[in-house]
This record gives sequence, structure tokens and C-alpha cells, in this order.
Amino acid sequence: MTTISTHTRVRYGETDKMGIAYHGRYLDWFEMGRTEFCRALGKSFSYWESEGVMLPVVEAHCRYKSPLLYDDEIEIQTTVKNLSTVSVIFECKIFNAATHKLAAEGHTKHAFTSPDGKLLRNGNKLLDWLKNSSDENQNE
Amino acid sequence: MTTISTHTRVRYGETDKMGIAYHGRYLDWFEMGRTEFCRALGKSFSYWESEGVMLPVVEAHCRYKSPLLYDDEIEIQTTVKNLSTVSVIFECKIFNAATHKLAAEGHTKHAFTSPDGKLLRNGNKLLDWLKNSSDENQNE
Amino acid sequence: MTTISTHTRVRYGETDKMGIAYHGRYLDWFEMGRTEFCRALGKSFSYWESEGVMLPVVEAHCRYKSPLLYDDEIEIQTTVKNLSTVSVIFECKIFNAATHKLAAEGHTKHAFTSPDGKLLRNGNKLLDWLKNSSDENQNE
Amino acid sequence: MTTISTHTRVRYGETDKMGIAYHGRYLDWFEMGRTEFCRALGKSFSYWESEGVMLPVVEAHCRYKSPLLYDDEIEIQTTVKNLSTVSVIFECKIFNAATHKLAAEGHTKHAFTSPDGKLLRNGNKLLDWLKNSSDENQNE
Repeated sequence: MTTISTHTRVRYGETDKMGIAYHGRYLDWFEMGRTEFCRALGKSFSYWESEGVMLPVVEAHCRYKSPLLYDDEIEIQTTVKNLSTVSVIFECKIFNAATHKLAAEGHTKHAFTSPDGKLLRNGNKLLDWLKNSSDENQNE
Repeated sequence: MTTISTHTRVRYGETDKMGIAYHGRYLDWFEMGRTEFCRALGKSFSYWESEGVMLPVVEAHCRYKSPLLYDDEIEIQTTVKNLSTVSVIFECKIFNAATHKLAAEGHTKHAFTSPDGKLLRNGNKLLDWLKNSSDENQNE
Repeated sequence: MTTISTHTRVRYGETDKMGIAYHGRYLDWFEMGRTEFCRALGKSFSYWESEGVMLPVVEAHCRYKSPLLYDDEIEIQTTVKNLSTVSVIFECKIFNAATHKLAAEGHTKHAFTSPDGKLLRNGNKLLDWLKNSSDENQNE
Repeated sequence: MTTISTHTRVRYGETDKMGIAYHGRYLDWFEMGRTEFCRALGKSFSYWESEGVMLPVVEAHCRYKSPLLYDDEIEIQTTVKNLSTVSVIFECKIFNAATHKLAAEGHTKHAFTSPDGKLLRNGNKLLDWLKNSSDENQNE
């Protein structure tokens, strides 16, 4: 399964009074990973939204392995784990890019919905594309 | 001119590695102040959005006077300063509620626009309401 | 086991382009819940930090049940679920306060550490307090 | 005076229900700009903090010129505008990188303080470095 990497740095405003990155911000980084995953496979997530498919999060999970500090460069690795007719799971690992140490890992589960929030029960274009992109990449 | 007060506390995730509230979060508190200002005057800002008037920010300014710490209770004081046909300025002061010390003061300037971002050049219902609410309250 | 409730509203800046509260912000609300849990039991979390006990998050989980909109009042219900010598789990439910509909539920797991991030392996004052506060409240 | 550019993209969680980037997040981007400004000149801001100089924000100002959308690539241009013995002003412009349209411009003013928040009244190493780096670069 394709894994896409993207990099960013811990912002000052993402740290907290413990001096480390605030745990809630990792979900923002997971989202960056999903955005870059779609772009790397050839179509932006914005494109899919304009095609009428939304991906609201129905579950999020994160295990924090080692703290990140202000200005640490991080590598976000994203992959698709489970694809069903109505949902997709993105798995995400965050590494300290300098030390290659795993900082956190987790996933988000998303429903495929219409722009007005209705579950798309009978499949959709984004689902097909994720399936095909994965298949193509698995064969490579 | 009416001044409306609302209270909240500094969240852990709003602090940064300096151990104080991150300066960017004050704009979120200013926004809380505007929301409560409208509610206190009798109509929620959601209502005005549903009536087709949006208030995108065109300018923001903040002076930071004394730092706020995690869990500090803050008082947000909001008032309308300038009303023109096309824009409104909300002024905001943030106090440490325990010490009554001024923590920050500033303002945001907003354009009146339609939901698709077009400037409402010829007045609008929210403008009239803000004008009347202010007038009524000035007479009290 | 004691459950503590606290209320807040969805801020404008906590919504996203889907028009609903962004999933990452729920972890900030969980944190508000933990803060108010400690205060309600008689000692602020700031106090425990000043006593040398930190609670970095080692795991976070959230299931999103129904979307929240801008300005929705939410009720955050927090309870302690698991207490061990080295960690504690806080469980959290978030309700739409107007409809009493469950919006999300989840938990965070925290390690007890010193201010410099060392695991407190042999117990600590905050652990004892949480245990006693829970026991006292269970008897009520 | 040296101007340093850095790029990022608007995250999903940085948009709001108007469908555009939330105005408060621009201050986070200004901060990214300052961080990269220091790195580009040869010493990270983390380094200066470890040398005992902090830069709390005492004033922030931003004018919003044109909205930014989710996933828009932005260019952040940062320069030092005013240097005094006790403070520094960073100016910041944010462009839509695809259209080169100015999205926002503003500044932040910072005090030079010790880690415990005391104003450094008699100059400091970071001030000297900013002065020298600027001078060197002005001669280029």
C-alpha cells in the first residue's frame, strides 16, 4: 500500500506550557498527511470535495511515543488502511525527522458523505479512485 | 455604547512554551466576545448569518499588556466602536478576572458581505440592528 | 465514580469549511473537562503541576457521533476511568446541551511525570488525591 | 533589509464555516515567518531562546486583503522593520503563491526579555545579531 511522506515543523503556537507539542495538534498534522496523500496520488482532496464527496471524521486515535519540541522537523507518513463502501481509514505515523524516532502513530476513520452530510451508501468516485490508486501502487 | 462582558478560562492548549497564553489565541477570544455581544443584545450572530449577512475580518489589532497563564479566568469586554454602511469595528478588552488587570486590548474591523463574499454596499439588516441596539442602549 | 460537567460553546474559529466543528478541537474540549474535573474535586490542575506532577497525554481516542455547529452550547462530562501507579485515564462525553444528543465520546490516557518528563514510577500526590477523591465520592 | 520567504498550505482545520482561512490563524503564519527568518540568517530562534532571550509579542496587527482557501499554497515574506534596544518589529506579508495576490500584511512587535519575562533593558545578543545580520545583508 502506498505511503506518502510530507514534512513540516512544530510551530511555536503548537507547543504548550510543558514545553512540548500539544497533543491535540497532532490531529492537524494527520490532516496535512491526508491532504498530501491525495495530492501525491494525483488529485487534490479539494477536487474530490468539488465533486461532491466529503470525508467527515468519525473516529480518531493517537498514541504519543516521544515528545516533539518547538521547531522540530517532523515527517508525516500516511497510508490508506481500510476501504469499505461507506468509510476509509487513514493511518498516520509522525517521526522526528532529525532523529527518525517515532513521535506518534494513529489513525482517523472517515465516512463518505454528500456536502449536506448524508452518508453515500452506494459507493462514490473518491472511493473508486482510492481503490484504483492503491491497486496500481500495489502492483508497482 | 453598550459593553458586554463574558468569561472563559485559558486552556492548556492555548499556552505556549513560554508558559503563557499564545498571542494568536487572543483573536479567538475577541471572537467569543463578539458572539456574546450579539446574543446579549437579543439576536445571535448565527441568526444574522442565516439572514445572509457575513462579517469577515478585514483588520485585527491587539496590544498585549500583561501575560495570562493556564487556567486564568479572563473577562472579555466587547463594544461596537464604529459603524459605517459597509463596516463595523468591535473593540475588545481582556482582563485577568482575578486581578482585574488589563491583559490585552484591541479591535477587529469587519466588512458586511453576502454569503458569497460580496460587499453589501447599501446597508443591511445587521447594520440597522446594531445601530438601533446601540441607540436604545445609549438611552438607558 | 464522580462525573463532572462543564459547559462551553463552539467558537467560530473551531468550525471548518464543512460548516461543523473541526474534529481536532474536541481534544481541547476534553482538556477543559479534565481541568474542571480537578477544580470541582477541590484542587486545580495548576496546583498539581506546581507540586511537581505533570500529566502528558500518551493516548487519545475520540468517536464522533453527531456534528456540532458554530455557537452550539456543549456539555462536557468527565470522569476518571482507570487509575494505576503510573497512569490515569479520563473518559469524556460531549453533548449538544440544547438537544442532549451525544456529539462525541472518548478518552485520554496520561502518564504521571516529573516536570522534566521522567515517569513517576512509585506513585505521587496527584494519584493519591484522585484515588481518595474518587473513593469519597463513590460512597456518597 | 533582508526579506525571507517561506511556504506552507492552508490546513483544513484553519478554515472556518465561511469556507475561508480563519483570521486568527494568520498570526500563526506570521510566527512561522519569524522562525524561518532567523533560520535563514543562520541561527534558529530556538538557539536564541537557549541563550536566554525570549521575544514575547507586545503588539500584533494584520490587514486582510483577499481570502485564502483550504489547500491554497501561501508565501510568507518576513523582514525586520524596527530594532530598538528593547524591542523589534517583524513585518509580514502573506501571498497566495499561485496567484501572487497579497492575502494579508501586518506586523508583530516583540520585547526582548529574559526567560522569566523581565525586559532586557541594556541590549542582548539576539539584538546584536539581528542588527549585524541586517547590516551585512543590506551591504549585499
